[in-house]
Parts: sequence; C-alpha cells; structure tokens
Amino acid sequence: MKRIFEIDPWKVITHNFDPKDKRLQESMTAIGNDYMGMRGNFEEGYSGDSLQGTYLAGVWFPDKTVVGWWKNGYPKYFGKTPNAPSFIGIGITVNGEKIDLAKVKFDDFELALDMHQGLLTRSFVYEGKDVKVKFEFERFLHIIQKEAALIKVKATVLEGHAKIDFDSTLDGTVVNEDSNYGDRFWIPLGEDKDEKTIQVKTKANPYDVPQFTVLLKESLRHNGEAVNGDVTTEDAKLSEKFSVDLNENESYELEKDVIVVTSRDVEDKDQPAVADNLMKKLQSKSFDENLADHTEAWKKRWETSDVEIAGDDAAQQGIRFNICQLFMTYYGEDKRLNVGPKGFTGEKYGGATYWDTEAYIVPMYLAVTKPSVTRALLQYRHDQLPGAYHNAKEQGLPGALFPMVTFNGIECHNEWEITFEEIHRNADIPHAIAMYTDYTGDDSYVKNEGMDVLVGTARFWAARVHWSKWRNKYVMHGVTGPNEYENNVNNNWFTNTMARWLLKYTLERLPLATKEAQERVHVTDEEKAKWQDIVDNMYLPEDKERGIFLQQDDFLDKDIRPVSEIEDQRPINQHWSWDKILRSPFIKQADVLQGIYFLNDEYTMEQKEKNFDFYEPLTVHESSLSPCIHSILAAELGKQEKAVELYQRTARLDLDNYNNDTVDGLHITSMSGSWLAIVQGFAGMRYDHNQLKFNPFVPEGWDHYSFKINYRGRLIEVYVDHEGTKLTLLKGEDLDVLVHDKKITLKEGETTNA
Amino acid sequence: MKRIFEIDPWKVITHNFDPKDKRLQESMTAIGNDYMGMRGNFEEGYSGDSLQGTYLAGVWFPDKTVVGWWKNGYPKYFGKTPNAPSFIGIGITVNGEKIDLAKVKFDDFELALDMHQGLLTRSFVYEGKDVKVKFEFERFLHIIQKEAALIKVKATVLEGHAKIDFDSTLDGTVVNEDSNYGDRFWIPLGEDKDEKTIQVKTKANPYDVPQFTVLLKESLRHNGEAVNGDVTTEDAKLSEKFSVDLNENESYELEKDVIVVTSRDVEDKDQPAVADNLMKKLQSKSFDENLADHTEAWKKRWETSDVEIAGDDAAQQGIRFNICQLFMTYYGEDKRLNVGPKGFTGEKYGGATYWDTEAYIVPMYLAVTKPSVTRALLQYRHDQLPGAYHNAKEQGLPGALFPMVTFNGIECHNEWEITFEEIHRNADIPHAIAMYTDYTGDDSYVKNEGMDVLVGTARFWAARVHWSKWRNKYVMHGVTGPNEYENNVNNNWFTNTMARWLLKYTLERLPLATKEAQERVHVTDEEKAKWQDIVDNMYLPEDKERGIFLQQDDFLDKDIRPVSEIEDQRPINQHWSWDKILRSPFIKQADVLQGIYFLNDEYTMEQKEKNFDFYEPLTVHESSLSPCIHSILAAELGKQEKAVELYQRTARLDLDNYNNDTVDGLHITSMSGSWLAIVQGFAGMRYDHNQLKFNPFVPEGWDHYSFKINYRGRLIEVYVDHEGTKLTLLKGEDLDVLVHDKKITLKEGETTNA
Repeated sequence: MKRIFEIDPWKVITHNFDPKDKRLQESMTAIGNDYMGMRGNFEEGYSGDSLQGTYLAGVWFPDKTVVGWWKNGYPKYFGKTPNAPSFIGIGITVNGEKIDLAKVKFDDFELALDMHQGLLTRSFVYEGKDVKVKFEFERFLHIIQKEAALIKVKATVLEGHAKIDFDSTLDGTVVNEDSNYGDRFWIPLGEDKDEKTIQVKTKANPYDVPQFTVLLKESLRHNGEAVNGDVTTEDAKLSEKFSVDLNENESYELEKDVIVVTSRDVEDKDQPAVADNLMKKLQSKSFDENLADHTEAWKKRWETSDVEIAGDDAAQQGIRFNICQLFMTYYGEDKRLNVGPKGFTGEKYGGATYWDTEAYIVPMYLAVTKPSVTRALLQYRHDQLPGAYHNAKEQGLPGALFPMVTFNGIECHNEWEITFEEIHRNADIPHAIAMYTDYTGDDSYVKNEGMDVLVGTARFWAARVHWSKWRNKYVMHGVTGPNEYENNVNNNWFTNTMARWLLKYTLERLPLATKEAQERVHVTDEEKAKWQDIVDNMYLPEDKERGIFLQQDDFLDKDIRPVSEIEDQRPINQHWSWDKILRSPFIKQADVLQGIYFLNDEYTMEQKEKNFDFYEPLTVHESSLSPCIHSILAAELGKQEKAVELYQRTARLDLDNYNNDTVDGLHITSMSGSWLAIVQGFAGMRYDHNQLKFNPFVPEGWDHYSFKINYRGRLIEVYVDHEGTKLTLLKGEDLDVLVHDKKITLKEGETTNA
Repeated sequence: MKRIFEIDPWKVITHNFDPKDKRLQESMTAIGNDYMGMRGNFEEGYSGDSLQGTYLAGVWFPDKTVVGWWKNGYPKYFGKTPNAPSFIGIGITVNGEKIDLAKVKFDDFELALDMHQGLLTRSFVYEGKDVKVKFEFERFLHIIQKEAALIKVKATVLEGHAKIDFDSTLDGTVVNEDSNYGDRFWIPLGEDKDEKTIQVKTKANPYDVPQFTVLLKESLRHNGEAVNGDVTTEDAKLSEKFSVDLNENESYELEKDVIVVTSRDVEDKDQPAVADNLMKKLQSKSFDENLADHTEAWKKRWETSDVEIAGDDAAQQGIRFNICQLFMTYYGEDKRLNVGPKGFTGEKYGGATYWDTEAYIVPMYLAVTKPSVTRALLQYRHDQLPGAYHNAKEQGLPGALFPMVTFNGIECHNEWEITFEEIHRNADIPHAIAMYTDYTGDDSYVKNEGMDVLVGTARFWAARVHWSKWRNKYVMHGVTGPNEYENNVNNNWFTNTMARWLLKYTLERLPLATKEAQERVHVTDEEKAKWQDIVDNMYLPEDKERGIFLQQDDFLDKDIRPVSEIEDQRPINQHWSWDKILRSPFIKQADVLQGIYFLNDEYTMEQKEKNFDFYEPLTVHESSLSPCIHSILAAELGKQEKAVELYQRTARLDLDNYNNDTVDGLHITSMSGSWLAIVQGFAGMRYDHNQLKFNPFVPEGWDHYSFKINYRGRLIEVYVDHEGTKLTLLKGEDLDVLVHDKKITLKEGETTNA
C-alpha cells in the first residue's frame, strides 16, 4: 500500500514530486474523454523514468504472438492499443536551460486532477540562475467535441528576466514498451507545415486487421490570437518554435489546441479538411469558454451518478475517482467501443475487451447510464459472434466461445491455461443478457439477438462437458476458474455452475424468442434433451459436512490455512514462484463466491455464510476484481466491518496502490466494483423478479451516503444515514420498492422514509 | 510414418533426392565424433529449404528467455548449442554454372551413411550444357583425432570439357533458426589469410556464462600435395578459390582438411599454434590413411556393442542406426559432456542435458561402455549440485532440484508446467546412482559423492510434499508426470512413487556412506524421522477394484477410451489444441508404466499386467521415450507381438519418421530405447540383487539376435535363436547367471547353451 496523493473529496492532488513514483503518478493523473486518453505525462518533457502514453479508443494493432513454446491453437497475434502520436508536447527553455523536472531546480510543485470537471492542472516554480519562473498548466480532453485536446501553459516571471523558448510538438515516433518484437506500430504518411498536421498509419499486418490512420493538427493561441511559430517537420514529427521575453512580474499564456481524427470516423484523404473544420469550430471559443462547456457536461454526468459519502473523505475520494476514471474511459456514446481493463492509462492487457465488461461494468452502467448503453455493450458481443465461432473451432469444438481478450471477437490471449481454459467467460458474458433483461424489463434483446448468443454458447458448453462413468455425472475438465491461482483444474464449481445456468436459461428463454430467432438458431429436440440432461446431471463438487461448495475437485486435499499466516509474503504473485502459488490454498479472486454473487437468489443465507467463512480467509484479492464481490456478500451477511474493509480496498485500490501494480495503469474495469459495493453491498440493492429491493446500512464512521439510479425510466435517489433510508423519486412513474423487505411506494418528486 | 531411405543392414542409403524431404534427409545423415557434429548439409551449398547445422560439444550460448507472459521463477536464459561456424563448404562451379541441386539438372544421385565406419558419402552426375560431370563426396569426423574433419570431393568429367571453380569456405556468419531475438550468437575475432583460419567468439552475455572462442583452420590437398588457392576474407569468413580444367574422362580429387579447436580445450591466444600442430599431425597421413584409422576405431566400438538381428533387415538397420548415432554423439571420452536429446542433429531442445540421460542412456551405456563412462555421467550431476540448489531456491524450497534442461546445472526451461512441475526428474536422475551401483557392484560413488546428491534431492522432496488432513497422507500437488499430456496434476503416481523411493533409498544408504560424506550431508534424526514418515505415509492413488495404480487423482473421471478410436487424428499433438489433449485420456509417454519399469522388482506380474492392459491402449507414444518402456514390459508379460511392434517404433522412430518431427533432428537420447527393448525386453536381462538374469525369446520372423554386454569386468555375448539361448563369456572370470530362472555358470572362452 502506498498513498502519494492527498485526501480530498473532489481532487486527486499532491504537492510532492518524487521521481521514483513518476509512473505511479502518471497512472493516477490520466485523463480521457472516452474517445482518447493519456497518462499524466508532462507537457515540457521529462528525461527520467516515465511511461509516455496516449491512446485512441478503438484504434489497435495486431502484434505478432510471442511465446516461449508454441501450443496448438494459440492465436496469431495479440491485439494492442498502440501508444498513439503524442500531442501534448510543449518544450520549454528558460534562458537556455531546458525545463525538465528530472534535472532542473524547482519548488512549489502541485499536481491535481479535478474530478468534477475532468481537468488536469500542474504548477511549479522553476529556479534558474538569476531567474524564477512559475509555470501553470491546464489540460483537458473535451467531452463534447471529442476530437479536441486543449492545453494551456502560463509562465510568470517571479524574479529576474526570462527568455522563454517554446517548442510545441506533434510526435508520431512513439513506441510501445510492450511491443513484442520492438517494432514501431506507426508509419508516417506525411506532415504539413502550413496546416500544422502530421498523419500516420498503423503498420501493415498479415492478419486482415484493418490499418488505422490518424491525423493530428495543432494550433497555438495567445490571448485569443493565433501564434505562428517556426514550423519544422521530419518523418511523423512536427515542431513549432517561438520565443518570448519576459521581465519580472510579467507573464505569458499559451494555449495549444489539438484536433485528432482517425480513420474510424474519417477517411484518410478527408482527414485534413475535417480536422481543419473541427479546429475552426474549437477555436470559435476561447480556452475558458471551451472549458466551461466541458465542465457543464461533466456536471450533468455527475448529477445522475455522483455517490456522496459524508464522514469519510478517503472513501468519498475513492468512489469519485473511480466514477470519474470510468466515465473518462467509456460513457457509452460510441457503440463500437468497449471498456479496456486499463482504459487509457497504460499498455498492460493491450486495451482490449475482457469479461470484466459484462461482470463488473454492466451492473453499474445499467443504473448510471441509459439502458441503450448496456444494450450496446450486449450488441457488441453479438456483433463479434463470428469471432466466437472461430475461437471454438480452434479448440475443435462446436458453438461459440467468447474470447478472453479481443478487439474483434477473435481470441488474442496466449497462455494455454487462460486462452483455452478460462472459459467461464463464456457464461459470464451471456449472463449480462439476463442482468439487462431483469433490470430493464426489456426482453426484446433476449428474444432476438440475445438468442443467437445464448444458443451459440450453449452449444459450446454442451460439447465441452463430458459424461463421467465414474461419477455418473457430467463433468468438466481442464479449466481455470476466476481464481487464476489455480490452473487446469477439474470441475471448477463456478464454471460448472455457470455453464449449467447458461444451458438452463437458454432452455427457459428459447420458447419465448421471436419466431425468426428460433428459426435462425434451429435448436433440435435432441439438443434440448441433451441440454436438459446436462442441467439435471451436472456435477457440482461440494463438501456436505462443511456445507460448502468445493472450488474444484479435491480442494480439501490442500494445505488449507488462512492468508493471515503469510502476511509477510504478500502479494504472493510478487513473492512466490508460480508452482507455489498454484498448490497453495490461496485464492486470487472470488471464485465460488463469484458464483454465489452472480446467482444470488439461488442460495440460502446459510450457504452464503458457510462459503464466505470458508473462502474469504483464503483469498488474497490480488485481482482488482475480487474485493468488491466479497464486500457485497459480507454486507449481505451483516459482516459490516469486513464489508467496509473490502470496500476500501476496492475504492482506493489505485489511490493506495494496494496491489503494487498501479504503475502499469489504473484498474479501470474493477472501478465499478466500488460503486457495486456501496449500492449492492451497503444499500443491498437487488432487482430479481421485477422487484427492486434495498437492504441498507451505514458503515460505522460514515455519517451518510447517497447515490442515484436509473431504473426503468425513473431516476431514484437513495440516501442512507443512521436514522434510516430516504428514497426520492426524482423522475418517473410511481414504483413499489422493498426496503428491508417492507413495501414502499415511491412517487415523483417525493421523498419517502424507510 | 515416412521412409525415405532404403533398407540395408549397415547403411542408411537412398538414391532419391526430393527437395521437400531435404531437412528430413539432413537429420538422418548427420555425423558426429562426440566432439563435434553436423547435419547432412551439402558441401557445395543448397539454395532450397534446408537447415544448416554444425555443432560443437559443450559450446553453448545463453539466449535471453522469451515468453508471452512472465511467471515468477522463470530462468533468465535458455541455453543453446549455437550453430557453429560451418567448415564443409566447397562451392563448385562448372563452366560458369554453380552446382546447386535445387537448381541444376542432375542424375544418379546417391547418399549414404555407412554406419560401420561413420562415413558419409554422396554422388551425383551433373548434366550441364555439353557437359556431364560426376561428383563424389566423402566426409567423416575423425574419432581419434577429434578436432579433425575430413572431406573429399572427386570430379570426373563423363562428357565434354569442364572448367571447375572450387571455393572452399569457413563461415562464421551462421545463425540459429531458433534464436529468441534473431541475434547472431558469434562475433568475429579475426581471420588469417596465410594460416587459413577464422576465429570467432560467442557474444557477451549478462548471465556469467563463459564466452566460448572457436578457431577453424582449413588446408586443401590434391593427391597428397598442398593446394593453395586464392584466399580472401571478410568478417568471420574465409574463402579459398582455385580452378581446374578437365577433359572428358579426366578426374580431379580435392581433399579438404579442417581443424576445429575451442576455448574448452585451448586458450584463445594459443589456438592458432595448436591448430597448426593438429593440422600437421592430421596431414602426416593421407585422407585414406586417416579414414583407415578412423574405421579401425569404429570397428573396435562395434566389436563390443553390435547387436545382430538375423531375419529382419529393417530391425537390424534400426538398431545399428541408433547405436551409431548414439556413439557419434557421446562415447564418454570427455567427462565434461553429456547427451543432448538431439545430439548434433538439430537445434531443437537446445542441445543441453535432460533426465533422458539417466533414464535411457545410463542403463545401456552401463553395458556397452566402461563403468567409468557411466560414473562420469553421475559425476556430471554431482558437479552441478550448486545449480540444483539454486533451482530449488528459485521455487522457495530447500535442497536440490535438478533441472529439466541445462548446461551448467541451472534450469533454463521456461514453461511453468515443466520448469516448476515436471519434477519427477529429481528422483529419476538420482535413480541412476542405484542402477550404477547395482550393475557394477561398485558402491564407492553412492558412499561418497552420491550421498550429496541423494540427500540434496531428499531434502527437496521432503519439503515439496505436504500433509493432507483430508486424506491423512502425504500428498504432492501441482506436478507434471512423464506423461506431459497432463499438466499441473495432483498426486501423480509416478512422481509420488519415485519421491518415496528416493527418500527410502537415501535412508537405506545413508548409514553405509563414508564418515566424511555423512558429516558433510549432516542429516539430523529429526530429518530422518520425517523422511521415514513420508515413506510410510505417502499417498499413492490406485483403483483397487481394477487393480491399477492411478496416473493421478481422479484419472477415472476422464472419458476413458482407447487410442484406436482416434487413429485418424494422430499424432494428436499436431491435430488438437492443447486443452483437448490435456483433458483427453491419451498418454504421451509411459507414466505409471515408467514407474513399474524403474522399480520393476517391487511389483507382481499381476500388477504389471493389469496396469499394462489399462494404460497401453491409452498411450499415443508421441514422446520418443515411450515405446521402448512399453516394449520391455510387454516382453516381460509375454505379449511378444506387442513387444515387437513397440520395438519397431523405437528402433525405426527416425528412419520411418513415426512422429513426423525428425526434420528437427534425430531423437538421440531415446535411441538407446531400442537397445533396451532387445536386451531388457526380448532377452529379459535384469540385474537386481547382484544377480544377472535373462529371460529371452526370439520375436516371430527373426532368425536370431545377439548382443554383447560388459558386466563387472566381463564381456558376455548373448545369442538367442529359436532353439534357445547361447551365452559366451568372451572375457573375464566365471559368472553364475540365471536364464529362465535356471542357474548357469559361464566360463571364459566357453559358450553355454541355456
């Protein structure tokens, strides 16, 4: 655990600069506008250790697979969001000395991400020979005009005289640290000194993955007037230089406006003209006017999604940081996109789509965005069904297998124990169809496109199990469950349970599907009978005596002991060799408990409690996706202290660098976990069988908390303090909800005590 | 299965040249002299698909590890025998046309490896415009003067006139196809035009692995006279050109003598002088005189090791090919060396030391070479104990863990399921100590150095098991058995059995060790008690009803069906994705049966039969190490037809390319399996409890077979035909042996019928 930013309810702010935490700081001050994003790199450059990163949503590159030992069925490439051309560069030299915080003397450092308006600011006082200059930076990525990045730097001479040379750059010569073969992913297409543009294209590839073209255009302003410096170019680079002379107490403000267009939206040849128009539009307003528009749009986002926590600023900061970073990554405004595990904050995991989206993002986004956003996420998978069929075929199996990691539906992960075995995803992903249908009450998706997904995955599962004569049951061998600290196990309870659920749900929903869908999927009676047989005879390992489900066959053969015995060796993934991790009883991430969470209403409180009591002490939570699930179950079981402890771990995972890996980027897809921990955990929200329910409590030490949810056309505010719960129907038709199992009728504009 | 060479008892010969089989042909015509070796590349060059390969024993390079996803504990490098500078090159141009069998017209092709004398010959008739020239090549690596390679080419003009340009080369600009990062492993140190030498050095590395320097020197002769062509050099390359003019029926014979010295034997600066002396020594005799010496030495090797099979030339060719290739790889004359799985025949597996040596090479070499050879192989591991301690520490465990793959004792393999889990090697390797002691009757090793090995590995095993409260037994989780088609299993019967054996044997032998050894290893009473407890309470999975040992926990949960059901999908490692292989019941390589083979006298015939009948139908034998073990057990069980079928698969594995992978090189370490199948299988040789025993039969279709063994200072010939068995004590003191459980006394010079 390491906390390098101060506690503040609306800001991520620090007054320290420690070079050894530079990467961590960069991750934490990443900004994005769900079209593009970037790490908190410095405009003026930085020669010390740093991870330079700019990323464009939906722009990717298939990097040829690298493995030590090839296994049949491995994908040919790993899809990566390439580090995009960098456009923040404003080199600064004062009286001949280059400003570089790795080298120069400076003081009064401040770095802050204002979460309320998605604005990154930074300031410091440079102390040169006979001169002191204060530099103040502001930077944001416009959430209305998504192609626009705006940067402002203000220099104020505090002492002496300063000749300041600025060098504004666009730089397409960037590389990915994680490039498999050290390749550059971008090739230069051309630069234009007059238009101040550079255009680059992703390298050709042999995998039929489209090449992406990107054009960047810059324009400088000073007090609303165009600044035209001396422009030079080289391959994939543009530099615009000019100087100012400032005396003591004088200051100079430079605005850098940038437009980024990609071939996702604009054909290569049209990019210059489109960028030009976009720049004109942007510059029809001043920096401050643009910022005001942007801030207003952020305000609207917060109005329906803010979670307020009174009495615990650390918890408050955590949840707002998470919501802010999530919205900076994905707000559902471009249906072609999805949510990468690290968003726009780092290279790790390649920036593609994982099962995290359905398991963690969907349940939150159902409540904080419009239903169409979630539906688009479902449709995204439907569109990728051809890839899923391809993946199953690679494994010699029928049906559809959704990938672990993808941009286009085709699997690109290459560890056999994950690629081929962590197949629970193939039930978790369709499970979002059920969540969507239950929460929204809209069954039009499951009746149509959803049925293609259900039947495709059902066919995979029916072939992936086999009949064990020995057990007289259907079994499933060679899988990796959500707990990736076990590989290639047999009869993982979670996977078997979810596969069974998928088959059952498909059988239930199939007769209700549209005629067209039924004809399209064409499930034979024989298939239905087989599926039903699997549902009826799936082997689910359990220990009846202990009243627990067994994570996998022979789990009790392990040397079972609590995590508390190995505190000095955590995180174990940074201390132990892989075999030691595998044979230990320690659990990376909720596994049996993940299943109980997903299918919550199928288990009794006694079952939940016994399993929680058995598995939680074994869980190291070294996946960011883990603690929220445990927190929600702990809350349901009345284990409030545990629920809060696990909430903190979720909400401040990155802010406090719990897993010592935030240098690589933020854990974007698990950030929704903190929202779920409050809403499904502390407030106990459930929505099964068309009934919205709450079972709230306030954690000790908190005064109150409140949040808002969209539910079937209504906007509801839930406010919980130590007196009880107040529900306000801000918008929409009357609704009956259960609070602590008591029915309450909400009416528009009214607040009801419960 | 693919057979591209003709059947011949002493030759591997073909009259066909099919470019698509070039690599396969090159593997099969590899030659070596246990100092260096090379694939069957063509002297004149070949522009089609080919794997150029020359290898120097004990010269290696640590190639930086490449993996898709790093796991804690992975080694930093993979040790590889670099493709060494090539010295066979004799470029040939006839009337301006370069001879290149990928391009020119030719006829009367013949290629033959004469196994009796380790000589490679090749001839063809080139048909150019108005010219026909016959070329005849001879090549051998001298087994007395190991640094010497001798090549002869004879050109005879059959039609027309030929101006022939020769270009004899030494070429250090070679690369490894399997280089992880496409690096060249050699850097040039210098060339000398007068001395006709090139000197190269392996690239620097950050792993404390010594750099190797190699010097090559060439000298050309014609009819015993020096030929001095026009020498040019460039970095790491030397070329010596000259021409001859030949009229019809004239011929010209060119001899190329090469000396190769390495820094393993000669310091860099002394290499030119040493090479010069060696060249002088070599050239004190003609090519034919040198070949005669070499052939005489080979004859001596064959005299004590030939296996004769009458009535089945394919079987005869197979066993001789295997013995010849084994001896070309390793004859025990350099104690610093070991036996790489592909010897000098390809790049795959990196050319290092595997557990194959102890499990497959030792039991044969005990009988066909002097005891000192096997003892040196044991000592090799003792010398590498520091590496083994390092490996255990990398896994967070005490004691010593011998590596899967190594040059220096430090593990260099990098698949977690092998590196960390295929640990049965750590009992198989010490098991050779018991074999040596039992066979030779010499207990001086086990009492001294051997005790360090036994106690080091015992300490590893005692920590690697854990107590299962559930089973009330010691268990071992997360291992890969010899059957690598199962990964990360629990309680692999073989591994548990061998670990238990190791602890038991160590406890038995410890009190008999020298005082110094006992003091050195310092085993406490507490340790002994713990080891005994593990011996007494090790969990060994079995199915009592079926009377079989279970390969691992829950093996019967699989969809058990015989290999015969999937004949069309074999080899499965080339048809199925890895997960499908893992969850199938199919066995790559003897696993339970390997254990029964190792500890043969611990099991009843009923146990052997039941396990054989259960596991053999499940075994695909896709490891070259598998069929011999099954053959030996089949022979013991009287299943003669099966024994012969499996012998053929072992003996002709490469000759018939059974596993469709001989293009990569020969399966050197499994070649001893064919010898074992005859001697331990068909002849039923056993040597437990100081008693040499035989239980011979002759396979149907064979007339007779015979072989010789060294046994405790004696040389014994065993001859088996359909009449019975004849034993001849060629040398040594009287010996009582059991044949079909009947005692027979052998006397020197006498043949005894049994």
